Amino acid sequence: MNQSMLALTFDGTVKLQEVPRPQPRAGEVLIRVRLTGICQTDINITRGYKGFHGILGHEFVGEVVEAHTSAWLGQRVVGEINIACGTCDRCRRGLPRHCARRRVLGIWEKDGALAEFITLPEANLHPVPANVPDAFAVFTEPLAAALEILEQTPIGPDFRVLIIGDGKLGLLISLVLRLNGCELHLVGHHPEKMDFIEARGVQVHVAEGFGEKEFDVVIEASGSPAGWRMAIETVRPHGIIIAKSTYHGAFDFNPAALVVPEITVVGSRCGPFPPALRLLARRLINPKKLISRVYPLVQAEEALRYATRRGVLKVLVEMPQYESVKS
Amino acid sequence: MNQSMLALTFDGTVKLQEVPRPQPRAGEVLIRVRLTGICQTDINITRGYKGFHGILGHEFVGEVVEAHTSAWLGQRVVGEINIACGTCDRCRRGLPRHCARRRVLGIWEKDGALAEFITLPEANLHPVPANVPDAFAVFTEPLAAALEILEQTPIGPDFRVLIIGDGKLGLLISLVLRLNGCELHLVGHHPEKMDFIEARGVQVHVAEGFGEKEFDVVIEASGSPAGWRMAIETVRPHGIIIAKSTYHGAFDFNPAALVVPEITVVGSRCGPFPPALRLLARRLINPKKLISRVYPLVQAEEALRYATRRGVLKVLVEMPQYESVKS
Repeated sequence: MNQSMLALTFDGTVKLQEVPRPQPRAGEVLIRVRLTGICQTDINITRGYKGFHGILGHEFVGEVVEAHTSAWLGQRVVGEINIACGTCDRCRRGLPRHCARRRVLGIWEKDGALAEFITLPEANLHPVPANVPDAFAVFTEPLAAALEILEQTPIGPDFRVLIIGDGKLGLLISLVLRLNGCELHLVGHHPEKMDFIEARGVQVHVAEGFGEKEFDVVIEASGSPAGWRMAIETVRPHGIIIAKSTYHGAFDFNPAALVVPEITVVGSRCGPFPPALRLLARRLINPKKLISRVYPLVQAEEALRYATRRGVLKVLVEMPQYESVKS
Repeated sequence: MNQSMLALTFDGTVKLQEVPRPQPRAGEVLIRVRLTGICQTDINITRGYKGFHGILGHEFVGEVVEAHTSAWLGQRVVGEINIACGTCDRCRRGLPRHCARRRVLGIWEKDGALAEFITLPEANLHPVPANVPDAFAVFTEPLAAALEILEQTPIGPDFRVLIIGDGKLGLLISLVLRLNGCELHLVGHHPEKMDFIEARGVQVHVAEGFGEKEFDVVIEASGSPAGWRMAIETVRPHGIIIAKSTYHGAFDFNPAALVVPEITVVGSRCGPFPPALRLLARRLINPKKLISRVYPLVQAEEALRYATRRGVLKVLVEMPQYESVKS
């Protein structure tokens, strides 16, 4: 079992290298990764975010190749990225994704999925329905993050909603929110990226020309201070800003901008996997157009570089032995 | 009717002076003011907040001396401070306190209540129950602002709540929230000011020694960036920060502090008058201990100066002809 495997690691610099294959702990399974997505968080980590050193990557689909519970063996799975202790106050309150002692796949004290194999607790696994192809299933984690918005904030079908940012996250959020009938707007920089969203009934804007419009809910998914300012300027009094993006560094902010118009800001991060898988299985979400390129693992360094380019959407990395079994 | 009256005005400097008595517009009444409270907002205005020039003051109790609807004549009243247009989109959505064309008593394009007389629309008036003395009724407006928290955010009896700030607002909020049975903490600087809150079952702290405690709800009522930072440090993941204070100027802020622990921030300002009057009438709120001093209007400049002193709570200003009729 002390075999090695290829993995994309970060220890100050990004390196594709042979590392030992991970050993499952008690309650964990060994997963042969099939396909892994590159997330903005991976890119931020290589710029110092979280101080993480280890194997990158947390959006994956794979199959279980070693498990204590035989029912998992051979299952195609996706996995929740927060590994909770299960016993602390927060876990007992039903907030395992916020466990103070959590490790996070490819982000915090736990090697990630830009590798041939990973380990994860059985509690983190979700079987992938047979009719969901790998290239869709790999979007489960970011799609769950988009769905978290609806877990936290009821968005009614009669709401007027603005999404700021036409990156991967902003577009996925559009695909989710268009399903409830609300009046949906998205502002971004890349007309060509927004075409397919517009074709799905979302009103797209490349500049700030909203005139007198005020939005019931504004979703900040641009990851820039300018996006945050736009959110405050476009939300109506008593309205809601959903903050989805983390930023590099801080910026000037005056809470009076929230107090006087009585705006609510909801910080929003990871979300629930089961509804994400249901929407993919029902073909209500089709993320195919969000895939910019697929690279083999041997080109993972190049894949990461490509993912940082302006206007590039989801970059996927295929594992070596995957070509033959692709679903 | 072109009589003059004494009023505390601000036009860059604070001045007590004779000004023309105001004339009611259509739908408005003329109110002879009895008692007016000085609010932190009044002090902030004299430091440039909002750029308001005019008669200061918005917390008052008085009696109607001229009205189109005779039922109001002679009524003892308090009045909502936001004067809405009644026809714009926000008014029609039920948000008159956020009317984009609103004038605000003593704060924005409307002369205030540190004067012998004011005018207000009938729609803004609330009769004061007979058993509520003037010195209690004058707290209706700030008490309504405290109650706004419960209009916006359900705070359950089993919640652990922290109030930051032992000023007038923080103490009033304590008096409201202690009524629902929640575990209530307040952190401030002045042990002597907090004694009466502690005697009412609130756990008070003069330093940050909360140890491992995490609060379901943290209410920022200190008006300082330090209070804002403490709020972020003490709220639990998925918890709620209520932002009650406006600040002078901006400070550094990174939204990741909200996104990662999925914290919600609720901006909160003016609130509903009827429940404030009900709580005063039921003697469930007794604000007597919050009154630091009462000045006559002729000493209003001194009253305003005194109100800026550290540790001073509510300063009231009594109108000249009031002494004889005091309830």
